[in-house]
Amino acid sequence: MKACVITIGNEILKGKTVNTNAAEIGRMLYFSGYEVYRGLTVQDNEAEIRWALKSVLGLCDIIVLSGGLGPTFDDITVLSFAREVGVPLVRDEETYIRIKEKAEKRGLQMTEEREKMALIPDGARTITNIVGSAPGIEFNAKGTRVFILPGVPEEMRSMLESIRNKIKLRDSFYEEESITIKGVFEASLAPFVKKLMNSHGDAVYIKTHPGTSKEGEPVLEVEVSSKSDDQAKAKEIVRSILNEIALEAQNIKDLESPNEGHK
Amino acid sequence: MKACVITIGNEILKGKTVNTNAAEIGRMLYFSGYEVYRGLTVQDNEAEIRWALKSVLGLCDIIVLSGGLGPTFDDITVLSFAREVGVPLVRDEETYIRIKEKAEKRGLQMTEEREKMALIPDGARTITNIVGSAPGIEFNAKGTRVFILPGVPEEMRSMLESIRNKIKLRDSFYEEESITIKGVFEASLAPFVKKLMNSHGDAVYIKTHPGTSKEGEPVLEVEVSSKSDDQAKAKEIVRSILNEIALEAQNIKDLESPNEGHK
Repeated sequence: MKACVITIGNEILKGKTVNTNAAEIGRMLYFSGYEVYRGLTVQDNEAEIRWALKSVLGLCDIIVLSGGLGPTFDDITVLSFAREVGVPLVRDEETYIRIKEKAEKRGLQMTEEREKMALIPDGARTITNIVGSAPGIEFNAKGTRVFILPGVPEEMRSMLESIRNKIKLRDSFYEEESITIKGVFEASLAPFVKKLMNSHGDAVYIKTHPGTSKEGEPVLEVEVSSKSDDQAKAKEIVRSILNEIALEAQNIKDLESPNEGHK
Repeated sequence: MKACVITIGNEILKGKTVNTNAAEIGRMLYFSGYEVYRGLTVQDNEAEIRWALKSVLGLCDIIVLSGGLGPTFDDITVLSFAREVGVPLVRDEETYIRIKEKAEKRGLQMTEEREKMALIPDGARTITNIVGSAPGIEFNAKGTRVFILPGVPEEMRSMLESIRNKIKLRDSFYEEESITIKGVFEASLAPFVKKLMNSHGDAVYIKTHPGTSKEGEPVLEVEVSSKSDDQAKAKEIVRSILNEIALEAQNIKDLESPNEGHK
């Protein structure tokens, strides 16, 4: 099952905001059993939001989108989505009343901008926003389950938790573990990693992240992940591969050690 | 002038790695005078890398791509790029010698994986990697200037600095400044922000980022940016708009203050 993440906002594109929302959404999807397939970031601009949607609707089983639900002129995510899937915006009465009561309680007027936050695509379900005002939205389109969440991290995070249980795939478990190896270059371990990957097919993924210690020695983080319909089995495979890698790393160190290389 | 950022790697999609590379690249491009138009993150997978390239080649004036230049089996960015633009990979002799000498100095063998890092698309220029092994790549395709940089942040960052001077647009200056306003809701300031944006056309962008203080009071960061061919003018516009916003925020507070609302 494929999942795609769309984040919306100029502040992300120009690097003012580091895209922690995409990382948090990706992590939730990954640990719920999905293959996180594509991440798109676009401007607060109808044509761009629609381009992003068009390129993943029907391709992914699930899309989580974040950003552009607020009251300002450039919060046009819901409108753009509704136009892309060809449904009108309608007022969600429950949301409207909640926003109105909240405003009145604080002695604030019900402006056009506040009313906007109660507009949802016809046929959508809302996800309650317990932190802010604009609700999240759930909508099925072209075989894709779409969740539209706010961009404000606290609001996004609280909704992410609330959809986690709705989307969890029960028949797939992911396990992931890392080891850190010192003194072995990524390129030296690479042939062994390739061999391991080939022998395990789709069930295992091995990724190496090179770094350098303060002493200038190579430091390699090796991350092994596995998926299975049996959680214990996935864990066992990850452990056994990490052991094989640790042994091979020791072999490489023995062979490549500069002190022993010219014996 | 439009710029696009492509980042490659499963670890970003599944949220293991927060995409700081995209933020750093976006910031460099933005402050060099570009409109950062789209950010795409795809898997280490030829079809996906080519999809990302296809969707922005010819659309953006410049693409900066990061990730997938290393020696492992899943580092296939350069190969995928060469296939997408229809040129063969050729060995860059200078790079080959550098990698070979570096390996020999450490008593390491010149493996297939190390040789791979010296392959570049025919007609490309290399960008020296002063931190790691694989060079960066510069290539013009379909009217787009493409820079391919490593994914390891230290290596990416050092190359980003080296291309900054190559790409800087001298005739465009961006200025950006923020103020923080307490006690005013985003939705209350929104109509004024909209009015200001409309009256200044393309030259000014105003973005509001809502938050909440520990005391539960609304806190609004208002960010104003402006571009101009005159740096002093851009700065002056930003300052004057921030002043207008601060005054309006005071008006709203006076009007909406719960203590005075029922006078």
